[in-house]
Amino acid sequence: MELVGNLLSVRHDVRVFDATIRDGGLVNDFYFSDEFVKDLYNMNVKAGVDYMEFGYKASKDIFDVNKFGKWKFCNDDDIRSIVGDNDTKLKVSVMADVGRCDYKHDIQEKSNSPIDMIRVATYINTLPEALAIIEDAEKKGYETTCNIMAISNCQENDVKYALEMLAQSSTEAIYIVDSYGALYPEQIRRIADLYLNTTAKYGKKIGIHAHNNQQCAFANTIEALSIGCSFLDATVCGMGRGAGNCSLEGLIGFLKNPEYKLFPVLQFIEKHMVPLKESGVVWGYDIPYMLTGLVDQHPRTAIAAIKENDTRYVDLYKNLLDRD
Amino acid sequence: MELVGNLLSVRHDVRVFDATIRDGGLVNDFYFSDEFVKDLYNMNVKAGVDYMEFGYKASKDIFDVNKFGKWKFCNDDDIRSIVGDNDTKLKVSVMADVGRCDYKHDIQEKSNSPIDMIRVATYINTLPEALAIIEDAEKKGYETTCNIMAISNCQENDVKYALEMLAQSSTEAIYIVDSYGALYPEQIRRIADLYLNTTAKYGKKIGIHAHNNQQCAFANTIEALSIGCSFLDATVCGMGRGAGNCSLEGLIGFLKNPEYKLFPVLQFIEKHMVPLKESGVVWGYDIPYMLTGLVDQHPRTAIAAIKENDTRYVDLYKNLLDRD
Repeated sequence: MELVGNLLSVRHDVRVFDATIRDGGLVNDFYFSDEFVKDLYNMNVKAGVDYMEFGYKASKDIFDVNKFGKWKFCNDDDIRSIVGDNDTKLKVSVMADVGRCDYKHDIQEKSNSPIDMIRVATYINTLPEALAIIEDAEKKGYETTCNIMAISNCQENDVKYALEMLAQSSTEAIYIVDSYGALYPEQIRRIADLYLNTTAKYGKKIGIHAHNNQQCAFANTIEALSIGCSFLDATVCGMGRGAGNCSLEGLIGFLKNPEYKLFPVLQFIEKHMVPLKESGVVWGYDIPYMLTGLVDQHPRTAIAAIKENDTRYVDLYKNLLDRD
Repeated sequence: MELVGNLLSVRHDVRVFDATIRDGGLVNDFYFSDEFVKDLYNMNVKAGVDYMEFGYKASKDIFDVNKFGKWKFCNDDDIRSIVGDNDTKLKVSVMADVGRCDYKHDIQEKSNSPIDMIRVATYINTLPEALAIIEDAEKKGYETTCNIMAISNCQENDVKYALEMLAQSSTEAIYIVDSYGALYPEQIRRIADLYLNTTAKYGKKIGIHAHNNQQCAFANTIEALSIGCSFLDATVCGMGRGAGNCSLEGLIGFLKNPEYKLFPVLQFIEKHMVPLKESGVVWGYDIPYMLTGLVDQHPRTAIAAIKENDTRYVDLYKNLLDRD
């Protein structure tokens, strides 16, 4: 696989996605203050971030609106209360989770909505419904991406079929999602190469959403970038489920395009992320996440251990290895 | 550059170095309890680690023995009190810092010493003295490595001259040392390729010692490994100066050679590292380290900020950029 540009290149194909509210919301059940979200929006505008993901379009039949903050549901009015007419270069995205989103009802026509992009998250076996959401959203006027989750658990042949189906869909981009933080740079490059080669002739962009279980989220993101991936997810201070994500400050610091600015991100961290951490909201690399990443499993056991402040790592690893 | 083996390979050329006491000692001035060091030694034996670095052979003329724990000086008797006759496969190493070590006086003949290897740490401009220490140590019967520090600040031509000199020396291995945590995987592969190509015909091994300022320590280590580096430094929980190092538990988990065992490392972490962290000893990735890594500078300003619990990241970054 060939390198695309070099470490000093300004890659105009790059799109930086701030997923702090969406993935970070999995840590605090989406209870962010309006000031936090408003300041994050202003930060993203100043920092030159391309897309800000406000949260999920979760079904109110499936999820109790009293048990989550509003960004689990992303009503258009709630977004508009933050972005107004969004007369900026920053685009607004939300995530639609296959099987957990009443997309026909809850996603309005684009002309009436502050949302620019619908990102469709799917496991590989629910790809046909993902395609249905994508086509619905495209008809309504949105940009879309398809984010195939838990890719480290997929059979390569299934991935090829999925990529061929998506290549012929109307989606703009297809994401590699390392949900379990199980993949190493060498694997990410190989997977990215497959995604890029399978879909290049259809003009699809390839994205990466990494998790930090084995402290590879940032490295995997810039390695995917180096061979041609261009849609890059990150979150402020890596805030996200479990071990969290590629950090936005790390990514913005790394990218050479002068349109991306690090100072606004640092200002936001000082004002909001330091107090948030001090308030006891916990995410980020720790031994239990390393172990679930190593064995390529969902981090739920690690999340439970850390919530209980349970440091019996030997027992945790024994249990993770017991997969009969 | 070609990959050497693949992610499932057992690479018999690999040597894992536990540098917990040596690099971790920079965090707590080498004040480890004898029980900690003894248990670490036993852990390394059980885990199949190849070398354990006990600390520095620091000059007692330059450093006050009352201001540091004993592993700053690594008297042979102190090592022997831990390892006895060391009737194991684990080898013992210590580090000799160029200009800060009375090697002629403080390094005994190998036949009288529990030490197997002298690792010589040098900046590139002091390479001639490093070579003098290497030849002295080899004559006394030791294995040696030469660890060229702060490689991200070196001119590539100077590195080539250094490699040519080291290739013709009697040292076993030459280390890439990313002291500032400034390098990305793409750069590490390029530098490793240069080291490997320049010294291969002389039979030298190439090592990597990574720092975690930009959360690339583990990724850089396994990427260097993937193209042929074989001497791999790590520390338990990444304990080391500032942002710390590649974690031993991550590395042992990654390596496929069944001789390496993860359970003893997890047991040690439960017993010693959890209480050590709880006692207030601080190291590991944080925003100030990311910033010094990004600008390729020594972490001293970041270490000071974290010691003061100073979260004025904007001011820190402003100061780091002021390099006139």
